[in-house]
Amino acid sequence: MTETLERTTPAALQYSTENCQIGRALEILGEKGAFIVLREAFNGVTRFDDMQRHSGLSRQVLSNRLALLVDQGILRRNAYQDNGSRTRHDYRLTGKGIDLYPTLAALSDWGARYCADADGPAVQIAHRGCGGQVHAALVCDVGHPVAAPRDVAPQPGPGARRVMAQD
Amino acid sequence: MTETLERTTPAALQYSTENCQIGRALEILGEKGAFIVLREAFNGVTRFDDMQRHSGLSRQVLSNRLALLVDQGILRRNAYQDNGSRTRHDYRLTGKGIDLYPTLAALSDWGARYCADADGPAVQIAHRGCGGQVHAALVCDVGHPVAAPRDVAPQPGPGARRVMAQD
Repeated sequence: MTETLERTTPAALQYSTENCQIGRALEILGEKGAFIVLREAFNGVTRFDDMQRHSGLSRQVLSNRLALLVDQGILRRNAYQDNGSRTRHDYRLTGKGIDLYPTLAALSDWGARYCADADGPAVQIAHRGCGGQVHAALVCDVGHPVAAPRDVAPQPGPGARRVMAQD
Repeated sequence: MTETLERTTPAALQYSTENCQIGRALEILGEKGAFIVLREAFNGVTRFDDMQRHSGLSRQVLSNRLALLVDQGILRRNAYQDNGSRTRHDYRLTGKGIDLYPTLAALSDWGARYCADADGPAVQIAHRGCGGQVHAALVCDVGHPVAAPRDVAPQPGPGARRVMAQD
């Protein structure tokens, strides 16, 4: 079916994406394997060899992503020494890294709905102590329940910049 | 500082990642540029040329990601025709795509905290009608407030598979 309609230019095109915080976050997190490394870190897998075996990432990709995430202050590199062995390093989430938990939880929820086997998701997130399952939800600051994702919409934020010229 | 300590093997290493729903979701969404395309779609930017100009992705990458997202049922390809022009296609979120809103919102929140300019985030998410700001939050099914991301922890889900052999 082909629609013929008067075009409404999307409002978003009036604004630049050059300082978009989502784009900037994705300059880090959009690198292939970055979220897989974070999944390992959230799972308490902190050592290079364990991460490599558990994630299946190549050593080169894993090494590059760890360096990026350390450089960006998302992981902290920490020296350790097993009995008699040489000094090695492990990688743990910083506060900035732990603040990615809602993103990981949202990915996990979506994956549980659309990518899991019939017997259910391989991993879930629990509330410490209480044991309840934890999910990532859209929450309205004013306190209204957000019934469905269709009830929300993006809009220019305080840092939005108008596009100067259209060619 | 070098720590010497008895090692506790992370529990996650006892479980396979082969059917991890986060890993499977990232086989799609972890492709470079995939989330940028989704950002455009959530912003109502639906046409190839608009997406290309607004996102800055190369035509080749954009084309590949659109094909992937259509193939995965996240975007729907729709024919349209401007007055007198040949038939073209635009790309809109399906229900499966719209269900990625919490993930996008979580990325946006994290970016707003760590990647925005001093004048604030370039984009924000609002509750339709009410106008309140919307964020992605960790919510406990039992109803307890989740005070901080440190209060939650991943655990094996119903589909978790034990690793058969360790080498």
